[in-house]
Amino acid sequence: MLEHYYAVIMAGGGGTRLWPLSRQARPKQMLRLLEERSLFQTSVERLKGLFPPERILVVTVAEQAAILREQSPSIPAENFLLEPMPRGTASVIGFAGVVLKHRDPQAVMAVLTSDHFIGNEEGFRDLLATAYRVAQEGLLVTLGITPSYPATGYGYIQLGEKLGNYGGRDVYQVVRFKEKPDEEHAREMLTAGDHAWNSGMFVWLVDHILDEFGNQMPELHLQLNEIAAAWGTSAQAETLGRVWPKINPETIDYGIMEGAKKAAVIPAGNLGWNDVGSWDSLFDVLPADAQGNIVMGGHHIGLDTRQSLVYVNQEHRLIVTIGVEDLVVVDTGDVLLVCRKDQAQKVRQIVSQLKTEDMNYI
Amino acid sequence: MLEHYYAVIMAGGGGTRLWPLSRQARPKQMLRLLEERSLFQTSVERLKGLFPPERILVVTVAEQAAILREQSPSIPAENFLLEPMPRGTASVIGFAGVVLKHRDPQAVMAVLTSDHFIGNEEGFRDLLATAYRVAQEGLLVTLGITPSYPATGYGYIQLGEKLGNYGGRDVYQVVRFKEKPDEEHAREMLTAGDHAWNSGMFVWLVDHILDEFGNQMPELHLQLNEIAAAWGTSAQAETLGRVWPKINPETIDYGIMEGAKKAAVIPAGNLGWNDVGSWDSLFDVLPADAQGNIVMGGHHIGLDTRQSLVYVNQEHRLIVTIGVEDLVVVDTGDVLLVCRKDQAQKVRQIVSQLKTEDMNYI
Repeated sequence: MLEHYYAVIMAGGGGTRLWPLSRQARPKQMLRLLEERSLFQTSVERLKGLFPPERILVVTVAEQAAILREQSPSIPAENFLLEPMPRGTASVIGFAGVVLKHRDPQAVMAVLTSDHFIGNEEGFRDLLATAYRVAQEGLLVTLGITPSYPATGYGYIQLGEKLGNYGGRDVYQVVRFKEKPDEEHAREMLTAGDHAWNSGMFVWLVDHILDEFGNQMPELHLQLNEIAAAWGTSAQAETLGRVWPKINPETIDYGIMEGAKKAAVIPAGNLGWNDVGSWDSLFDVLPADAQGNIVMGGHHIGLDTRQSLVYVNQEHRLIVTIGVEDLVVVDTGDVLLVCRKDQAQKVRQIVSQLKTEDMNYI
Repeated sequence: MLEHYYAVIMAGGGGTRLWPLSRQARPKQMLRLLEERSLFQTSVERLKGLFPPERILVVTVAEQAAILREQSPSIPAENFLLEPMPRGTASVIGFAGVVLKHRDPQAVMAVLTSDHFIGNEEGFRDLLATAYRVAQEGLLVTLGITPSYPATGYGYIQLGEKLGNYGGRDVYQVVRFKEKPDEEHAREMLTAGDHAWNSGMFVWLVDHILDEFGNQMPELHLQLNEIAAAWGTSAQAETLGRVWPKINPETIDYGIMEGAKKAAVIPAGNLGWNDVGSWDSLFDVLPADAQGNIVMGGHHIGLDTRQSLVYVNQEHRLIVTIGVEDLVVVDTGDVLLVCRKDQAQKVRQIVSQLKTEDMNYI
């Protein structure tokens, strides 16, 4: 175990990118989609050997805490930090930061996601161990994903000067963070070879990141300090409940990383990483049968059916597909989604539409 | 009303061509698919003005009789004839024939289907009235459907010498009946212009058709006579139950019409006829929306969805389709069918497969 090393798993998202399976009240990280365990459970368990459970913090929202605790009973109850409401990743990270600083002033903090797939778990732990060393040297480390195609669904990080090699891994200065590009721009970045996908995972000294909050987000810094001062006292809950709603929502990328002087990125190499961000992404993660189909649940009969995904959460339901290709069929009982695979990201539009029409379905 | 004219509606089929909506126990004729009324109800009601209810006979099976009676309460209970088990259309027609002869020796009998759509109901009644006159002259009349495309799903009738014109309709000798053709042959017949589709509807004198049974199907004729002799006596049920199972299954086309000397065909002209034989046929019968979609039941949201059919029998179910075209989605609760429109006839293969695997779904 690396001394003073803590994992902070961000698990408060209400993502609906795998709608209609993922819902506001049952977001992606809770789903047992890829295996017996949920993405959240997998995110915890892949830390084994590097972070003991008492050094794993989970930031989430009250509605989700009970299920997450049940899914990972080894993590102490006091390690679940509850954001009263979503205020962006900057506030989540700052909140975890002040709590960690209160617990261990020398803490190094790995900010991790709860709903991504990582095929190479050993490689991931090795990456986190390397990032720990780099963070100890005073750098704000971003874990970069080596791009494998011109993705338009991820943010990018432009790599600058090489800062050194740590345990066989090259570490680069960050030139800039870039929003999700259009396809042409994505192709350019892939060809140039000097960009990594932004994984949303970071490693740094708690002291260092809190200093950055002080420099770049002074208002949030004051708010966090107010919460920190009350932490562990009888005023803890009241202070959090009073201060938090006033926080301006902001992401860590724009709030801190864009303007950070000492930002570094470590390209992760062959990590088998996938953000499981839409139904078609499952084809990169799950094994398909001889016809290229992925069938989960129910009883399926396919005639001339290829490269399609069928998900049903009702055991006795019979699904028959005839003459279909590259199709996603997801049946959650109340909702049936039939979607061409390459348009799977459009479920977002449906979710947006339903937000104004019928909340029952989201 | 035309004297001695009776309609015999064949309603015993257990068709599963609209599976999974149509089932063995809930065949196509019972479905309220096209309108508030079932196809069977429509088949009865379009006879209004030509056949009073007491001159409409329905041949069906015991399992379906209760629902059919409920759907058409105006038809007297004794007009429902129950075949103990399916033995082909020859036996059904012979059975109705002996019962009719018992009731009215001068009967003219129109053999009609219970599960077809006919857009031009007035034209249909006019056709039946013409056929009555032709039958009175000693011809076995087949109602032919004027072909509108090279269909491979119907049987064909080759038209021979013109026998005359009755009420503006040309009547032809039948050269021969032909089974469902391949596409090339279908095209040839369409081009030649001397073929009609076999509608499976016939008009003849009861005496005449029973004579044909005597000539061409002597074994069935004897069996029918045995049933006829017991009809209206205390031995009726016992005799039917004993004789019927021994009947050799045969269709009227092959058993009688192929070999009949005095077969005639009347091309129906513009009848708006459709056998509703598969899901794609509904596009010829039902109005579609601006995107060419037909949506029945449920709550549907379509994004880039065109020329597709969505049927759901659960009111509160949300169906979302994204980026699909020419697709049929049918959801009956226990079964979900997702099928490319031009492969809709393949549901038969699925039904065949399920017959050996799991009868619950058929």
